[in-house]
Amino acid sequence: MARDVAIIGVGLSKWGELWEQSLRDIYVEAALAAIKDAGVDKIDSMYVGNMSAGLFTGQEHLASLMADYLGVASIPSARVESACASGGLAVKMGYMEVALGMSDVVLVGGVEKMTDVGTDEATFALATAADQDYEVYQGITFPGLYAMMARAHMEKYGTTREQLAHVAVKNHEHGSMNPVAQYPQKITVENVINSVMIADPLRILDCSPITDGAAAIILCPVELAKKISKKPPVKIIGLGHATDSIALHSRKDLTSLPATAKAAKAAYKMAKVNIDKIDLVEVHDCFTIAEIIVIEELGIVKKGKGGSAAESGMTRLGGKIPVNTSGGLKSKGHPVGATGVAQVVEIVKQLRGEAGPRQVKNARIGMTQNMGGSGGSTVVHIMEVA
Amino acid sequence: MARDVAIIGVGLSKWGELWEQSLRDIYVEAALAAIKDAGVDKIDSMYVGNMSAGLFTGQEHLASLMADYLGVASIPSARVESACASGGLAVKMGYMEVALGMSDVVLVGGVEKMTDVGTDEATFALATAADQDYEVYQGITFPGLYAMMARAHMEKYGTTREQLAHVAVKNHEHGSMNPVAQYPQKITVENVINSVMIADPLRILDCSPITDGAAAIILCPVELAKKISKKPPVKIIGLGHATDSIALHSRKDLTSLPATAKAAKAAYKMAKVNIDKIDLVEVHDCFTIAEIIVIEELGIVKKGKGGSAAESGMTRLGGKIPVNTSGGLKSKGHPVGATGVAQVVEIVKQLRGEAGPRQVKNARIGMTQNMGGSGGSTVVHIMEVA
Repeated sequence: MARDVAIIGVGLSKWGELWEQSLRDIYVEAALAAIKDAGVDKIDSMYVGNMSAGLFTGQEHLASLMADYLGVASIPSARVESACASGGLAVKMGYMEVALGMSDVVLVGGVEKMTDVGTDEATFALATAADQDYEVYQGITFPGLYAMMARAHMEKYGTTREQLAHVAVKNHEHGSMNPVAQYPQKITVENVINSVMIADPLRILDCSPITDGAAAIILCPVELAKKISKKPPVKIIGLGHATDSIALHSRKDLTSLPATAKAAKAAYKMAKVNIDKIDLVEVHDCFTIAEIIVIEELGIVKKGKGGSAAESGMTRLGGKIPVNTSGGLKSKGHPVGATGVAQVVEIVKQLRGEAGPRQVKNARIGMTQNMGGSGGSTVVHIMEVA
Repeated sequence: MARDVAIIGVGLSKWGELWEQSLRDIYVEAALAAIKDAGVDKIDSMYVGNMSAGLFTGQEHLASLMADYLGVASIPSARVESACASGGLAVKMGYMEVALGMSDVVLVGGVEKMTDVGTDEATFALATAADQDYEVYQGITFPGLYAMMARAHMEKYGTTREQLAHVAVKNHEHGSMNPVAQYPQKITVENVINSVMIADPLRILDCSPITDGAAAIILCPVELAKKISKKPPVKIIGLGHATDSIALHSRKDLTSLPATAKAAKAAYKMAKVNIDKIDLVEVHDCFTIAEIIVIEELGIVKKGKGGSAAESGMTRLGGKIPVNTSGGLKSKGHPVGATGVAQVVEIVKQLRGEAGPRQVKNARIGMTQNMGGSGGSTVVHIMEVA
């Protein structure tokens, strides 16, 4: 019988353009913050989520590097990758390690140092999440892929340019209350619509930024958490993981993200909850259109109705189900390998009641949805105060 | 209680300089061979071991790419990386997934396509397994790191230039009996000693080659294996995983590989066996000196006595404990992310009695040791006919 797994510590590094800190510096900063928060004095094993330190900084073998620089070289440590879902995947692996009983105290970190290269190189590195042979060599980049999804959604469901903008406005409003956010400024619909065109219809304020950052959490069995944790342990009650074609052109429908629907279904089943029981959600808003389609796939709104959710206030703090109270990838920033872990950090802070001005009242159950590429992989976690 | 885990299918792609096949082609070739060997008609999830497709072919997000091209897009699929130990790490993850009961039939594959770039770029990609900031930027490459280990071992223990050569001679002799081997030609001690100098004292015939290749295995619970497998299932009875400083200069002793010793100790404990019970071993002979130090750390010979093992015939086919009957990385080839999985393929073939002219008589228990970088990570597995 698998052991129940709790999160007992969370930590973040600074997020932004951190030119004076290296890849290892920011990872260790987040890891030490999580260790301090958990109040543990040792960790038994580690998982590192990272998309492409090879291309961003010429460094693979991250699991050993980070164990070494954290001062715990010799423990089992593994790096996992699923493009921008690398962080969520690392959380899954840490869950498995504890549930199986291979380790008691597991550190799960995510990290990406993206500003050691220029914009062209960063764009190339990010594009390796798409199909290199059949998409990237033809000239497509990620804004282009999501722009096609946005255009298809607008054509099929009548989603408007303004509705896309409302997602960014909401997430920046949330981010303005998050001290870690890379772009905490509030913005307006007009700001978004008049910002620089990237890939029609997406403008620069529809896109998440390039970010250096790291996030970490500490996992242990619920039984142990109840003994050692001074803060309320947060239990992982649901987990889902699914893939889809890596290439967008292989999908039946550009307006769907089947891997998200499948992963969410598995997580709901494991957690024995449905969307009505969930108090808040962190989703993968790498572009504004992504949040719109994702909340449809999670069942927050009906298919085709994602466009009006941010506009109506339903997904805003104080609304029916707040989405991306952290500011999301859009405002908080998107260090790709760290994002999935940082989403869990936000949910844990909310469920503990530590979210300050952006606190969701009476939050008891939260969910994260972390996505790789144009939806080729998705990991979903559901958490509850233990 | 964790479920017992068996290997019921194994497969390899062609190995060599495969200029007419892509990364995805060779992965799918190995995966289909393993699926056919296992006789299963579906897989529930997948792990992909790969070191650096980002740098070798501009492709990350491999787990989704490979699930897609194998025709199983939608299943949970994860890529794991620990430099040249990525394959062994993938086997560990597959073991955990089955042991925990998250999936019944799991495909574990390893792949590396190394010849799509030139030698300089390949050397850079491989060097990302070392410490980029403190080793690689100073000009070191992997032959240089292992050359320092070799020189230290020669100074401390009197290991000779000829003894290094005997490792290569033995492994090429074994490889000459392996149809998949990239360099199956037999060589002599004189050939090695007179070959081109790479990093003193290591010459080119002390070094494993650049290889394109993939390997795959199918895992399932032992209970299920006994029902569905036509061939003898091979049970994973021991597993160990450890790390060490990523940089060689951080080690106390250049002639030791503590992560290998620690991983082996954990695997022996879990399997409840000692080295005397083990009939054959596949070790990570990326350079001849590596095999010498590794067999010391595994307890096959005493510390400092690794040099004479190949020379004396002890580790040759027919000797006390055959090491690298497949030909090892040296003769069979070393597609870095595939190697750890391919080592398991060899042990399974031996334990099933399918190894042809290189068959170890009455082999019942076998072990693999897969290593990342200059020893910064190691994964050990022990297997027995179920």
